[in-house]
Amino acid sequence: MLEELKERVYRANIELVKHGLVIFTWGNVSAFDKDSGLVVIKPSGVEYDKMEGSDMVVVDLDGRVVEGRLRPSSDTPTHIEIYKARPEVGAIVHTHSSFAVAWAQSGRDIPCYGTTHADHFYGDIPCTRALSDEEIAFDYEKHTGTVILEAFSDRDILSTPGVLCMNHGPFAFGRSAEEAVYNAVVLEEIARMAYVSESLNPGIKRAGKALQDKHYFRKHGKDAYYGQRKQF
Amino acid sequence: MLEELKERVYRANIELVKHGLVIFTWGNVSAFDKDSGLVVIKPSGVEYDKMEGSDMVVVDLDGRVVEGRLRPSSDTPTHIEIYKARPEVGAIVHTHSSFAVAWAQSGRDIPCYGTTHADHFYGDIPCTRALSDEEIAFDYEKHTGTVILEAFSDRDILSTPGVLCMNHGPFAFGRSAEEAVYNAVVLEEIARMAYVSESLNPGIKRAGKALQDKHYFRKHGKDAYYGQRKQF
Amino acid sequence: MLEELKERVYRANIELVKHGLVIFTWGNVSAFDKDSGLVVIKPSGVEYDKMEGSDMVVVDLDGRVVEGRLRPSSDTPTHIEIYKARPEVGAIVHTHSSFAVAWAQSGRDIPCYGTTHADHFYGDIPCTRALSDEEIAFDYEKHTGTVILEAFSDRDILSTPGVLCMNHGPFAFGRSAEEAVYNAVVLEEIARMAYVSESLNPGIKRAGKALQDKHYFRKHGKDAYYGQRKQF
Amino acid sequence: MLEELKERVYRANIELVKHGLVIFTWGNVSAFDKDSGLVVIKPSGVEYDKMEGSDMVVVDLDGRVVEGRLRPSSDTPTHIEIYKARPEVGAIVHTHSSFAVAWAQSGRDIPCYGTTHADHFYGDIPCTRALSDEEIAFDYEKHTGTVILEAFSDRDILSTPGVLCMNHGPFAFGRSAEEAVYNAVVLEEIARMAYVSESLNPGIKRAGKALQDKHYFRKHGKDAYYGQRKQF
Repeated sequence: MLEELKERVYRANIELVKHGLVIFTWGNVSAFDKDSGLVVIKPSGVEYDKMEGSDMVVVDLDGRVVEGRLRPSSDTPTHIEIYKARPEVGAIVHTHSSFAVAWAQSGRDIPCYGTTHADHFYGDIPCTRALSDEEIAFDYEKHTGTVILEAFSDRDILSTPGVLCMNHGPFAFGRSAEEAVYNAVVLEEIARMAYVSESLNPGIKRAGKALQDKHYFRKHGKDAYYGQRKQF
Repeated sequence: MLEELKERVYRANIELVKHGLVIFTWGNVSAFDKDSGLVVIKPSGVEYDKMEGSDMVVVDLDGRVVEGRLRPSSDTPTHIEIYKARPEVGAIVHTHSSFAVAWAQSGRDIPCYGTTHADHFYGDIPCTRALSDEEIAFDYEKHTGTVILEAFSDRDILSTPGVLCMNHGPFAFGRSAEEAVYNAVVLEEIARMAYVSESLNPGIKRAGKALQDKHYFRKHGKDAYYGQRKQF
Repeated sequence: MLEELKERVYRANIELVKHGLVIFTWGNVSAFDKDSGLVVIKPSGVEYDKMEGSDMVVVDLDGRVVEGRLRPSSDTPTHIEIYKARPEVGAIVHTHSSFAVAWAQSGRDIPCYGTTHADHFYGDIPCTRALSDEEIAFDYEKHTGTVILEAFSDRDILSTPGVLCMNHGPFAFGRSAEEAVYNAVVLEEIARMAYVSESLNPGIKRAGKALQDKHYFRKHGKDAYYGQRKQF
Repeated sequence: MLEELKERVYRANIELVKHGLVIFTWGNVSAFDKDSGLVVIKPSGVEYDKMEGSDMVVVDLDGRVVEGRLRPSSDTPTHIEIYKARPEVGAIVHTHSSFAVAWAQSGRDIPCYGTTHADHFYGDIPCTRALSDEEIAFDYEKHTGTVILEAFSDRDILSTPGVLCMNHGPFAFGRSAEEAVYNAVVLEEIARMAYVSESLNPGIKRAGKALQDKHYFRKHGKDAYYGQRKQF
């Protein structure tokens, strides 16, 4: 079932390796199939070069494996929490890419310092709060979804399609697996640029609101004029 | 029309990818044909591996598409402003290369700390002023050209063939597309070296004027003695 | 003798090159064969692309060459000290990977700032004390083993399978050569992330104990639920 | 003439590219033939992928071209100064590798922070003084040799086979072209490690003298016991 989506999720996982965002088994991609209400996700702890599209696991929104001989990613409950609360999200990518992790470990939002950021993420990229010891002890992966959703309680998740889980690492979102991977790559690059920018100028300020809006809205929404009228 | 120039502009775009200066669609190269007064430029938002030479777009200095089935780069008005004011510029490259962007985001000129810089750029590499909200709201891309030209109001653009647009990223110039790409690569490398240099010595000083002049003029101008008497 | 183990040790050495942890001859892998009580180790100062599996040297726990026409790694006495004191260690990797060396040169333990670290290393990654002049003058390589063992005097070496030798570089451990290489790659990545994290937030704090435990024990020990029930 | 040496110098230049130390035409290798008293050096400003062994230029110690249809490197007088004063030097490499340049631009010696450094360079790696305006104005390249030699006035150039020209970049030395390239690669790696080390610990101290000596002399000199008794 969902063979085409499995293949796309598989290829999205491989793209993470090609873009240098994951090594070994560190990362996972899932996609949500609206028609069936099912999630296709990478199996847990399987190396990328030993994986095939048919190894992707299908789970329902209660976390039950519907199809697949392997265990789903241990982060599956996190993905499910987000799909349940934000049906507009079509795919989720989790990585341990170096610079995004460093921001997550520093416990800080990534301020919007320029147009590379504003072209893709509206406003600062949030860092979640830390989980409480209780949230860690019981249903840890589900609560990871909880703190992610809290970070987006007052904002549109697809306009700022990325978040840093404190002391953990980045999650990126998209309408499709390809778009979520794209956003994960951009997030890592923005994290790197912002890091260097702060080193160069301790008194650095965010890009102005007008510039941020200009760049975001020339690429997104009804008045966008960047590109060739169809992306993703 | 301008088939050879299209091919060169196309190849220059590909070179940006090979040199690691752009990912996805982040960057563009244009060239100016003096005879016809026309500009050849990369189409907007098209990925590099899906592009061919024949996809390059030809526009006139009023920004009208003269030939091409795709939209030109959304940065076309920036390029045009520069070609109109500085006819000695034969090609322009815009990228979001990491370290040059970081300097642009920090809002700082890149000081000339050594001969790698002085060999290629005469004096500090300027960072533009920020655009005003009005300049952003109306004809933003054209006004990006305006602030670039202001940065060169008292200096020769081909002697310092690069600039950082504040909170945005680098533009590099050349007499040809190949030369502009070369300068974009050098600018990124200089940006990286200057960043590390400052970390190593907070009290760092610029290279002396005599050293800067020596290196610049042994490679450029009538008394140059570096190389084999023909470059680019 | 031990042909299969030699081949695995050889391949583990090659993996270090592929993962960018060593250049030239900077690094070595050994493995311990419990049945025979012998150690298989890389020859000293031989470049990786000129080496074959049959060049691996077999030594006993007194450091005598049992088989092999080449000299064993000059670090052999360090490896032997560890195998003698910690029979649970099946393989040892030594590299001069850049970021781990930088931490070793800074003389600091790597604090556990997040889950990438906690997934693989329990608690901070220790940096040894400096060797005394006497320890350096006599049996230097053996005493390098001594200070490593001191760093693990009150902890399980396979739970924190890596250490920084002060002013020198990292050693990583594993039950097998493959696992030790894996841990060496992870150690370098953690060292890089922790470095950037500290730059981003001078007031950075370790990840909470509950989070560290959660991540470590969901991958290791009897209650582990990450992966497919067999690793390495 | 000197065809074999030309081929080795050519290949050494190519190695610089493979190791990521030079881009475009930024770098040069020369070697000195003791029998004939002649120097073989890379031509000036020629790109590496357009060069062949037969393009190498032969010059005498007065800087006159003895053979070759291309101009020799503009840095030839620097190389000659060193060969004249230090006949034990068999080859010289000059690059603009990023981290070594950053140290040169910061105007600082690289302190010996660990064994990676001590294995290859005895003591700190010196940064030259700045050239005076007069030295820059007349015979600049020759005077670059002068300040390099001053940095080695009280030390053995082959024991510390590298130097940073202030505000310029690194030169590395060796008995052969291959060895000089090796030392140039090591110098860049040491420069990178020392940079990160200082960031991690502002109060960082050099490795102790006993450790430095131990590592240097286990690889060099009559009591060396690292490797297989023949290197280079």
